[in-house]
Amino acid sequence: MQTFRNIKKLQKFIIGLKKIGKTIGFIPTMGYLHEGHLSLMRQSKKENNISVISIFVNPIQFGPKEDFKKYPRDFKRDEKLAKSAGVDIIFYPSIEQMYPAGYLSYVEVEKLSNLLCGASRPGHFRGVTTVVAKLFNIVQPDIAYFGQKDAQQARIIQKMTQDLNMPIKVKVMPIIRESDGLAMSSRNMYLSSQERKDALILNRALKEARRLIKTGVRDSRTIISTINYLISAKHTAKIDYVKIVDPQTLTEVKKIEKSVLIILAVWIGKTRLIDNLAVNL
Amino acid sequence: MQTFRNIKKLQKFIIGLKKIGKTIGFIPTMGYLHEGHLSLMRQSKKENNISVISIFVNPIQFGPKEDFKKYPRDFKRDEKLAKSAGVDIIFYPSIEQMYPAGYLSYVEVEKLSNLLCGASRPGHFRGVTTVVAKLFNIVQPDIAYFGQKDAQQARIIQKMTQDLNMPIKVKVMPIIRESDGLAMSSRNMYLSSQERKDALILNRALKEARRLIKTGVRDSRTIISTINYLISAKHTAKIDYVKIVDPQTLTEVKKIEKSVLIILAVWIGKTRLIDNLAVNL
Repeated sequence: MQTFRNIKKLQKFIIGLKKIGKTIGFIPTMGYLHEGHLSLMRQSKKENNISVISIFVNPIQFGPKEDFKKYPRDFKRDEKLAKSAGVDIIFYPSIEQMYPAGYLSYVEVEKLSNLLCGASRPGHFRGVTTVVAKLFNIVQPDIAYFGQKDAQQARIIQKMTQDLNMPIKVKVMPIIRESDGLAMSSRNMYLSSQERKDALILNRALKEARRLIKTGVRDSRTIISTINYLISAKHTAKIDYVKIVDPQTLTEVKKIEKSVLIILAVWIGKTRLIDNLAVNL
Repeated sequence: MQTFRNIKKLQKFIIGLKKIGKTIGFIPTMGYLHEGHLSLMRQSKKENNISVISIFVNPIQFGPKEDFKKYPRDFKRDEKLAKSAGVDIIFYPSIEQMYPAGYLSYVEVEKLSNLLCGASRPGHFRGVTTVVAKLFNIVQPDIAYFGQKDAQQARIIQKMTQDLNMPIKVKVMPIIRESDGLAMSSRNMYLSSQERKDALILNRALKEARRLIKTGVRDSRTIISTINYLISAKHTAKIDYVKIVDPQTLTEVKKIEKSVLIILAVWIGKTRLIDNLAVNL
């Protein structure tokens, strides 16, 4: 396994690999790897000659009051985990490599970026699409892997790739959960033990909502009320949003007539968690 | 020479060419080709195995009151000229190919896009950077060629390519002029014979400005006054802007102490023309 910190050196190395016909799988991450990331790496390992991950806590996707500074970082730990998952190349750039002085260029996916988490975190997805476009140009993958946990992010990246004609296949892989159902996230480490218990309500409320839909409830408001009620019962929980949306357009669905995505963001204490569940009809 | 109208087919064909080691030169155009475009194609022919041009009048770079509808189009004529310049592939997509229903993604270079022509044509350069990013992803060139006539466009494309780490070299080639000095442009065909005569003042005023700088004038205001005076003497001319700027940042220079770019946009009747001249100190 090789680590690159310099963009031009990695780009040159990748071009060399592509010239000899190697296929490239890519997983962009912010590090502090967990089983969710590792599942993407193992999938990439299966489907490509070379698996590349990036580890970069991207400053431009964090708001001024968000957790950029305290976001967990542990490169040595990540390095071992990546190696164990069969990764060939880690790209681990500095902020100055990615955003040198005088940086001016941004990629934006309209509409999709302003809904849901985009409404709560203005500019967040513009930061995500910009860094992913850069990483795609650097790594030039055949296939890029994203987790369904960040469902809106995955949908926006798919849309960007398709709209801008990037010659890259975007694969979205299932959410990996702890054995008790909590969706894996690097941010779970922020939780106190009480918060960790309360956080289980996210997945439980989603499953209860799915059960209601499966038993025939079709009015989104009824289902959202139930989710709100279940989550609000936890003292440390404060709902950011709970929505039932079309999986493609991410716009709200009032009456459930086909497959939908139930998606939510909830503050547990000072930690903002997200989760979602697709319900196929 | 082959013409492609379908994005996926061209992309597949190009990937095949790259797999067998061919280098790709690319010239994006809006068609109605003139000697300026052809000089870029001949340069590409010299430096690459395969030369690709695109012909696409890009709707999203025109303002609602601009000349999108009347912009000259003549594919048969362009096809012959491209062939004579040694072009191997013409990409000639429909609007629906490039911007299918539900299109949402845009590329933007801040600051540089709001100056000069960007101030007069809001959204213009966002349209340019978006379409060029798409074309770069479709054609995947090693080298892309742009004309210095559109100096701001060339600078913005260079900045986008660099900022977004696109693995593409951007070459900016000299302005090609008619024998009487008028910079070649597809829009010159809009000019009446009186306007065609008056339009010569753009290049003449630029040369007079260069002469003043070479004789030691250092105050930009003095030089701009002279240009304004010369151009305003023509009845059909109305100045949009005349500026002396830094060639990299495109910001105004008050006192000329190093190489500068004199750049202007002038309405000749109902036709907006641009021109520029670099002065090296």
